[in-house]
Amino acid sequence: MPVFKEYASSSRDLRVLPSFAPPLPRLTSPFSPGEKCEEEKYEVIIVGAGPAGLIHSLLLSRYGISDESLLCIDSKPSTLKSGQADGIQPRTLEVFKTLGISDEIEKEACHMWQFAFWNPSADTKKIIERTAMVPDVLTPARFPYEATIHQGRIERIMETDLSRYSKRGVLRNTKLLDVKIDESDAEFPVLMTIATDGIEKVLRAKHLVGADGAHSVVRQCIGLQLEGESLDHIWGVVDMVADTNFPDIRRRCAIHSPAGSVMVIPRERIATGEYLTRLYVHCPQAVVPEDDQGGEDRVKSDDARQRREQLTLEGILKQAADAFQPYFIRPKEGSVDWWAAYQIGQRISPEFIVRDSKGAARVFIVGDADIDFYILACHTHSPKAGQGMNVSMMDSYNLSWKLAYHINGLTPSTNENPSPLLDTYRTERREIAQQLIDFDRKFSSMFSGKVGATETLTQEEFQKAFTLGNGFTSGCGVEYPENMIVVRDDSDCHTSPVTGTDYQSGILRPGRRLLNVRVLRYADGWQRDIHDDIPSTGRFRILCLTSTDLLDKEGISVRGLDAIARISAQFPPTLIEHIVLHPCLHQSFQWEDIPTFVKQEAEMRFYDGSALDNAYKVYGVNPTQGALAVIRPDGYVGILARLDNTASLDDYLKRCIRPAA
Amino acid sequence: MPVFKEYASSSRDLRVLPSFAPPLPRLTSPFSPGEKCEEEKYEVIIVGAGPAGLIHSLLLSRYGISDESLLCIDSKPSTLKSGQADGIQPRTLEVFKTLGISDEIEKEACHMWQFAFWNPSADTKKIIERTAMVPDVLTPARFPYEATIHQGRIERIMETDLSRYSKRGVLRNTKLLDVKIDESDAEFPVLMTIATDGIEKVLRAKHLVGADGAHSVVRQCIGLQLEGESLDHIWGVVDMVADTNFPDIRRRCAIHSPAGSVMVIPRERIATGEYLTRLYVHCPQAVVPEDDQGGEDRVKSDDARQRREQLTLEGILKQAADAFQPYFIRPKEGSVDWWAAYQIGQRISPEFIVRDSKGAARVFIVGDADIDFYILACHTHSPKAGQGMNVSMMDSYNLSWKLAYHINGLTPSTNENPSPLLDTYRTERREIAQQLIDFDRKFSSMFSGKVGATETLTQEEFQKAFTLGNGFTSGCGVEYPENMIVVRDDSDCHTSPVTGTDYQSGILRPGRRLLNVRVLRYADGWQRDIHDDIPSTGRFRILCLTSTDLLDKEGISVRGLDAIARISAQFPPTLIEHIVLHPCLHQSFQWEDIPTFVKQEAEMRFYDGSALDNAYKVYGVNPTQGALAVIRPDGYVGILARLDNTASLDDYLKRCIRPAA
Repeated sequence: MPVFKEYASSSRDLRVLPSFAPPLPRLTSPFSPGEKCEEEKYEVIIVGAGPAGLIHSLLLSRYGISDESLLCIDSKPSTLKSGQADGIQPRTLEVFKTLGISDEIEKEACHMWQFAFWNPSADTKKIIERTAMVPDVLTPARFPYEATIHQGRIERIMETDLSRYSKRGVLRNTKLLDVKIDESDAEFPVLMTIATDGIEKVLRAKHLVGADGAHSVVRQCIGLQLEGESLDHIWGVVDMVADTNFPDIRRRCAIHSPAGSVMVIPRERIATGEYLTRLYVHCPQAVVPEDDQGGEDRVKSDDARQRREQLTLEGILKQAADAFQPYFIRPKEGSVDWWAAYQIGQRISPEFIVRDSKGAARVFIVGDADIDFYILACHTHSPKAGQGMNVSMMDSYNLSWKLAYHINGLTPSTNENPSPLLDTYRTERREIAQQLIDFDRKFSSMFSGKVGATETLTQEEFQKAFTLGNGFTSGCGVEYPENMIVVRDDSDCHTSPVTGTDYQSGILRPGRRLLNVRVLRYADGWQRDIHDDIPSTGRFRILCLTSTDLLDKEGISVRGLDAIARISAQFPPTLIEHIVLHPCLHQSFQWEDIPTFVKQEAEMRFYDGSALDNAYKVYGVNPTQGALAVIRPDGYVGILARLDNTASLDDYLKRCIRPAA
Repeated sequence: MPVFKEYASSSRDLRVLPSFAPPLPRLTSPFSPGEKCEEEKYEVIIVGAGPAGLIHSLLLSRYGISDESLLCIDSKPSTLKSGQADGIQPRTLEVFKTLGISDEIEKEACHMWQFAFWNPSADTKKIIERTAMVPDVLTPARFPYEATIHQGRIERIMETDLSRYSKRGVLRNTKLLDVKIDESDAEFPVLMTIATDGIEKVLRAKHLVGADGAHSVVRQCIGLQLEGESLDHIWGVVDMVADTNFPDIRRRCAIHSPAGSVMVIPRERIATGEYLTRLYVHCPQAVVPEDDQGGEDRVKSDDARQRREQLTLEGILKQAADAFQPYFIRPKEGSVDWWAAYQIGQRISPEFIVRDSKGAARVFIVGDADIDFYILACHTHSPKAGQGMNVSMMDSYNLSWKLAYHINGLTPSTNENPSPLLDTYRTERREIAQQLIDFDRKFSSMFSGKVGATETLTQEEFQKAFTLGNGFTSGCGVEYPENMIVVRDDSDCHTSPVTGTDYQSGILRPGRRLLNVRVLRYADGWQRDIHDDIPSTGRFRILCLTSTDLLDKEGISVRGLDAIARISAQFPPTLIEHIVLHPCLHQSFQWEDIPTFVKQEAEMRFYDGSALDNAYKVYGVNPTQGALAVIRPDGYVGILARLDNTASLDDYLKRCIRPAA
């Protein structure tokens, strides 16, 4: 193809790089660190670069909070090299997907699709038998599996992406020594001392995010203590390449044998081409350490310590081998690459936010609900349902956009309440932590509370608890309570634009995340996932499910579209995006047959909602009536409205977003 | 979760990085560049780091050919900044997927799903109307769309991945000055002179791959000239953000209007959030340059040059605007970021391989078939079907594993034929180039050969040509001719293990790539794509479709599995992998019910071939009989055999792979 003339613009050259997320607009004056005082100043400081801190940094950086304004510190010299978090829940994968960082996990993690239950067999020769096998994820989700992969790898994936937005990245080898609220500088009241490689420095910040885990220095300085209880169960955990004739070694298994309880968690493939297996092994002979609230001096008795010391790899493997009988299991030679022993429990911080004297939220605790599931521990013998890392990251995902809106002046505040949007962080996330604990307590008290008590559950009872619990363990069953940004109007079912209550299966519900559906794009016939139109760019979306009268120029669809055009025009540009679906219309139509607003604002987000998945049915929307939904920047439904009743939607958005001047 | 004991191995720390492909074994002695002579020595030198050269370097590096052994040079200082290749075919996407480098393209490229045809309308007021809309990809493929994205980005993706395997990467700013065969060093007979930043150096190599494009210095030095013809059609091409009321601007379109012909190629989204459109515009008034075989002094007449100079952006846009009537189209202000003018044609190198005096293949030309489709140019008005870049990369994909096998001593050779496996490169790839041209010629002579001749085609004729052509334009219709590594036994249909001839839809066929199917893994219930078990790691795979008698210890399945166990044991370890499917068996079974070979060799590649896609039906295999297929390292079927007749398969593998000593 001989080319004899060619011209290229310079902007073209930039397009060899992966795309960058568009930053949020900023209405407040640009931040300048200032030179006057001795302390370095930041708008946000994040303490801890584990999964919760990293995703927080990544989100804020993507929203446009620059290195001058944002600092993330961590005491470790690099990403986690050893650690225990192993499971990524379907909801966490959905969030990773909205950030464009799910690929490596999709490709290289182990996907757990099935959950097998093994129990004592009536046939004593068999000893144990498989009594049930169910899908590991029962809740509808974009990714119908849990993924298991090394936590250090998850951190590395996030840090690699962070490096595209932040030149500094994480400031490593940096310890937090002290933090307090000091309002001598009212704009930067968070006063902290850090030490990098031992050299101390005093910093000030508008906000501090404590993502420094169970032994949080932030929490200790602020004077908060984890509250809760520990179960007197000790579990050993081993990662290894298993040499075994157990048939379900590549499935998640809860094995309850007369000799004890073991949980099998299949894991990723390693460089040798072999596949790792994690075993959680209940060690009833081990002695529980005494209460360790502070985490510092938890060993109170020399005797207890001594007996705990006896918990060895060999002991754990022996205990596992006994529970697997009549099957054999042992590590392939040299293949044990991690093992540990721990105690399960549930502990939660009494407060997630610390305020200044005016009531503005200044310090946030994320990822601090240290929860292991009793019910799963006791009745499916799972010592841990992978909650920790996932709940932590979802704390950050809930908080980060609110913090960016607050800092950039995109959300209203008053003298009475200087940070209303920020306050919803506590309302929403502490409630979720509490729900998890309540659910767990209820079931663990309903049953005996002892490991091995499965005999008292009928298969049906067990299945029910498992299904309900799956909403929590998948992360997809989360429902935030009503608050400023979750508006439910249950009082009058006539005004609700949706019918149905099976919210877990997709019925639109304020406080729950929008379920993904596959839709057919009008402009180009591309078969898309609706989730791909709600990337984590900090934007609100109005999802308009037009009705079957879309082509009627006087119909409710046209009026609804007119209304949202007027409403969204009040707000700063780019903050609200529009997604428009149409139901099956039984006739073809052209752009000119529908309101110009659709092509102008949603040309590439306008879909046939009936051609692939039946989105109207999934969402519980009557195609003859349509519906409007506001999807928050974190993918949760904020409010629903009928196409002909948009006043509440207008109010809602004005509470969230400061109208353009 | 208080942990009170923990141990981690050091190998665990490495697992934060993305996985690396396992290198091929090497039976030849390790390469050492030596210090004796003045010339630097390499086993392979690749000239050109466009898509063909980059994928070649990437593949060889992944196979384990190290920087000491492999050098890739390019005259440019960086990856392509401007360029014209825009389309990635479904087959190319499949190959990228086997390399784990498709994600960014899947996420960020434009996906073309639909192809709309616009022709003159009988209603003169309308001028043009849409006469058909068809799926852009009609051939079954894992990715049912073509992707469009900046060529520089595709190169950057490959170069980024290359950097994981090669410390040096591409040696840039390096021109090839001369190359010849000089057998004074019989082991390194390829003698070349290069200049890096102007400084000359003499190198020797065992093999040279010329991936330096249409004006290849390699080809010129070797004395080969492109042969073929150019069409007297000049096209202008513009990338821009379109401001238009044309309804199909986001679909691929062939517009044939009374005022001229335009092709619309929707492209990727850019940083502004807008979407690019590429227009190919036929410019009948422009003058074709005289024959430009050499590419050097193609301008023979001042007059022609002068008139060509008149081809301006404004002229191309005016021509396009006329053809779009009654719709308007213009670039959004400042949005033209590339434009060019060129002439279409078909040219091909007469030889793809140059040999030394003993007949060993030494120099290879890849990516040199410079083909634009007449048929598409003339009848769908497509000036170019995106062949070039895709065909180039598939040349490299065909050659690279053969070269690695040859260098590592993994494939047999004799005195009579020192490089039989390498010879198949020419047999296979030149045939494909010729097929493309023949198909194209046939259709362009069957019809008038003039742009605008669509009137003479019935819709049905057109559709047929389009469907047939789609096998080529998708890259999924490629069928290599019979040769040493493509064994078809059409003579005796009784011995064939497959029935059916619709190879494009998946019926197993030696010489065609294995179509992807979705299968359910026995070990863990993971719903997988079979393509994910044939990554580009240079391994052969035996695909065993067991029969319904799998559980019968005396049945043909068990005997077939026994046979392939014996056969594959003859070859060096890891070179042959096994994929085993079973048909619907109507009863559950355990590992112990089937030959231990399956668990030993294919535990994680053993599937139910009936639970998701019906693999047996797709592949044309009778479940009561089963079948065996050898899948070559490039994903093409090499040979088929019945479960009870494995001698031919044994012969086949011995021709490809040198048995272990």
